[in-house]
Amino acid sequence: MLGRLARFLPILQWGRHYHRQALAGDLMAAVIVTVLLIPQSLAYALLAGLPAEMGLYASILPLVGYALFGTSRTLSVGPVAVVSLLTAAAVGRIAEPGSVGYLSAAVLLALMSGLLLLLMGLMRLGFLANFLSHPVVAGFITASGIIIAVGQVGNLLGVAAHGDNLRELLTTLLAHIDAINWPTALVGVPALLVLFWVRSSLRPLLERLGVAPALAVHLARTGPVLLIIVTTLAAWLGGLDALGVALVGEVPSGLPVLALPVFDASLWGELAGAAVMISIIGYVESVSVGKTLAAKRRQRIDPDQELIGLGVANVAAAVSGGFPVTGGFSRSVVNFDAGATTQAASLFTAAGIGLAALLLTPLLAYLPKATLAATIIVAVLSLVDFSMLRRTWSYSKSDFIAVALTILVTLSLGVELGVLCGVLASLALHLYKTSRPHMAIVGEVPGTEHFRNVERHQVVTYPHIISLRVDESLYFANAAYLEDTVYRLIAERPEVEQVVLMCNAINEIDQSALETLEAINERLGELGMRFHLSEVKGPVMDRLRRTDFLEQLTGKVYLSQHQAIEDLR
Amino acid sequence: MLGRLARFLPILQWGRHYHRQALAGDLMAAVIVTVLLIPQSLAYALLAGLPAEMGLYASILPLVGYALFGTSRTLSVGPVAVVSLLTAAAVGRIAEPGSVGYLSAAVLLALMSGLLLLLMGLMRLGFLANFLSHPVVAGFITASGIIIAVGQVGNLLGVAAHGDNLRELLTTLLAHIDAINWPTALVGVPALLVLFWVRSSLRPLLERLGVAPALAVHLARTGPVLLIIVTTLAAWLGGLDALGVALVGEVPSGLPVLALPVFDASLWGELAGAAVMISIIGYVESVSVGKTLAAKRRQRIDPDQELIGLGVANVAAAVSGGFPVTGGFSRSVVNFDAGATTQAASLFTAAGIGLAALLLTPLLAYLPKATLAATIIVAVLSLVDFSMLRRTWSYSKSDFIAVALTILVTLSLGVELGVLCGVLASLALHLYKTSRPHMAIVGEVPGTEHFRNVERHQVVTYPHIISLRVDESLYFANAAYLEDTVYRLIAERPEVEQVVLMCNAINEIDQSALETLEAINERLGELGMRFHLSEVKGPVMDRLRRTDFLEQLTGKVYLSQHQAIEDLR
Repeated sequence: MLGRLARFLPILQWGRHYHRQALAGDLMAAVIVTVLLIPQSLAYALLAGLPAEMGLYASILPLVGYALFGTSRTLSVGPVAVVSLLTAAAVGRIAEPGSVGYLSAAVLLALMSGLLLLLMGLMRLGFLANFLSHPVVAGFITASGIIIAVGQVGNLLGVAAHGDNLRELLTTLLAHIDAINWPTALVGVPALLVLFWVRSSLRPLLERLGVAPALAVHLARTGPVLLIIVTTLAAWLGGLDALGVALVGEVPSGLPVLALPVFDASLWGELAGAAVMISIIGYVESVSVGKTLAAKRRQRIDPDQELIGLGVANVAAAVSGGFPVTGGFSRSVVNFDAGATTQAASLFTAAGIGLAALLLTPLLAYLPKATLAATIIVAVLSLVDFSMLRRTWSYSKSDFIAVALTILVTLSLGVELGVLCGVLASLALHLYKTSRPHMAIVGEVPGTEHFRNVERHQVVTYPHIISLRVDESLYFANAAYLEDTVYRLIAERPEVEQVVLMCNAINEIDQSALETLEAINERLGELGMRFHLSEVKGPVMDRLRRTDFLEQLTGKVYLSQHQAIEDLR
Repeated sequence: MLGRLARFLPILQWGRHYHRQALAGDLMAAVIVTVLLIPQSLAYALLAGLPAEMGLYASILPLVGYALFGTSRTLSVGPVAVVSLLTAAAVGRIAEPGSVGYLSAAVLLALMSGLLLLLMGLMRLGFLANFLSHPVVAGFITASGIIIAVGQVGNLLGVAAHGDNLRELLTTLLAHIDAINWPTALVGVPALLVLFWVRSSLRPLLERLGVAPALAVHLARTGPVLLIIVTTLAAWLGGLDALGVALVGEVPSGLPVLALPVFDASLWGELAGAAVMISIIGYVESVSVGKTLAAKRRQRIDPDQELIGLGVANVAAAVSGGFPVTGGFSRSVVNFDAGATTQAASLFTAAGIGLAALLLTPLLAYLPKATLAATIIVAVLSLVDFSMLRRTWSYSKSDFIAVALTILVTLSLGVELGVLCGVLASLALHLYKTSRPHMAIVGEVPGTEHFRNVERHQVVTYPHIISLRVDESLYFANAAYLEDTVYRLIAERPEVEQVVLMCNAINEIDQSALETLEAINERLGELGMRFHLSEVKGPVMDRLRRTDFLEQLTGKVYLSQHQAIEDLR
């Protein structure tokens, strides 16, 4: 009973054996992640076009929800860059940023995404995420990173930049470039440079100064928080507000108030597509992080239960005034490296963020938005990676097409069309490839029982026998290609009397392909030829026996190609 | 030069060697097909909701167009049942049957379909038709046949029956069933019975009466024409018009006037989806007939040039006041059986139908529509075939799902949604199957070098070695499944030190799968295990060599699984 329950509430598994040693690691990790998460939460709320406090709200209850229902021990859930961008794109289509409608649509999006993930989890549809290929995901994340970074340049310089794609963003940015707010730029650009320096050089510097390596790593991570403190103080003391520097402004103090999002059927309809996309993209990102971390400790995650965990997290975000969340890469790695061994770390982190929401919010009023923009830019530029283009170019042209198309469409037409085109292109290319499988006429390598491609090897063949090997399962999309190939081969070779189909690479024959084989068999029979199969796999043979194909077959089924040639030559 | 041209104008191939013997066969076939085609053309015009003469127009120039550009020697092009039904469904959505807008939309649909086919032919996209699986096509044709037959019951009885699906048709039919026009029913029902009798019993009867079998076949085919003559005479002499029997009415005499269809951008937009569907369905039907007939005489058709041929035929239909056409099954078989050996038969048939349009049309005014309805019902009921349900049930459950879904959706929601659902379902099921490939842990059959599934055979294994065979190419949709399986296996077997992936059924490894193999290799390495491959195919190995995967590999690549075990045990 407890076992069954524990499958749906993984906390019951690790919670029962929780011990003091784990507590130390989890507490340490929680402190470090909390420090990291405060600026990130505020920044991603800004990226999604939402008030800063919503970032904090999205980092409290969702963590608790995932901690109860998720199967990764170390995944850290909260607002992430790509999902925040998708949220902004979706909600921006139906409401003005800053309006009440915009806020409630973002909350509703979290609810819809959560319910969808829960539903997919209950239906065990986790495998759907497998249809996003790695190149498409990589291309999408790279292009999203570029769009996010360019979009934040406006905040960094105090000019307007908006749009769903690179062209719109650059156009608006360049149109207003002469209206740069110099005080803002004087905060933003140095902040950006400091963050780059912190990321690349602070840790080695600390180590040279004699700080222990482990401590140096953690100290370097406090960089963004220090920057926030410094720029906030500068804005307060320098009265930057009056100089036109955009500040976060009054942030309501306290914990989020629980409430159900608005129910509005037409709004649900308008957000449905975006909810599907956010759910799937968020899930793929989260599962890939979770899988990597779990494998490092020889643990496993359950992809279907992950849907439940992330679903609960998003529903929790929605009822506590947050926006869509998922498992983030950087924060999860920090959590893992800092010694977290269970989701207790996330519970402590939630408490930490809760404390921050209670106590620190009055201090955030003077935080310049340019500082947050710098934080975002540094974070997302680490996502930009064009190496996938180079790797797929040399390894697989069809994967190259998928990744290039994803990047191009995302940059030129926006994130939603980009990922959709990428998925459709990778599916279409896969189907196209399997619809024209590799086929080879094979002959026997002299002195062996091996059969190889006549074009690659010196082999023995007989003019009255064609031995054709198909390197793919036979199904509707390639059945006609097989038929065309067989007819072409026999039309080219009038002396042929025996056709042997070598089936060692055929893992399945569907109904269409079965009918095609029947047609080939019948046609060859009418022309006075015989059609044979060799090396048919057990499961394929089992199914062929349930039809009358084997009785109709003009030739035989041979256990090996060698036997076939011995018999027919 | 002539060779290149002949590829685009196949008539140049057979036309240069045309001889007297072919002429005799072609002329004979033309006479028989003309006799068959006159009632069929009128009937399918009625089915499409169009005036009778449009059926004749669609059987003149399109035949000439295909004869010049098509690659099948014996295919006979013209209006067919399923395409006429699709035309009625598409055009009925945007105009009232009988209105001028309805007529011009049908003509425009032929033009759009023709241009689309031409475009696909120039882009060599004939392979797209392969994505319609046989079970989906069979289910679609069966369900269409039922819808057509039920729809014509109204014409047979003189009551109104309309709708796009079975429920609508039956509802309207039953609602008006008390308004049966008895004189119409007294023409229609006997006509139907006579046609069934002609189809099943006339030929055997003629043969028993001493008629030569070949002649008996041809005489039996004149049945529908005789029925038309008899019922037309009856309607004329009996004044059936006054009794409420619907007649074909005044048919304009003469050949079609050449004209370009109306150009109306919004109409093009509304018909675009239907044009795509009609093009693909018509193409699939035509190519499957053409391929079967060509193979019988060891000829071949060129699927891409067929697109050109059918495209020209549809454009010809459009400019001569016809509606969408394609290669029909019954008329092509009749043409073939009657001795046609070249497309000259179609040119003579076109001339025959042209003569009919010039001379016979005044006689058609008294032809009862109920006679045509009976012709249609008999023709389409031969298309209805539920055996595919039984065959796929025993052979392949996923094909069964595709065919059952196609039939159900076509009957309940209409032809267009039916074929769309069928195609999407068969693609989705195929992708789902390949996303969870068959995998087996294998061991050596004692005394041999064969490796077999440990669950099916008595084989030798070693506790520190896992040999895993994957029976599918590795690509993005199944890469995660492989990863999960490997991690599950090693988590269950703490004693494992060596993992061998037997790759003999792997025809391709895409970028996603390559990264997954890299991840598995790295993870196993971190856990102190080694990862090996065996029996990697040549083309797969060639591509792996272009990456650094083989350098990173913790284990080796073995030529055979036997060598792997000899080395590792």
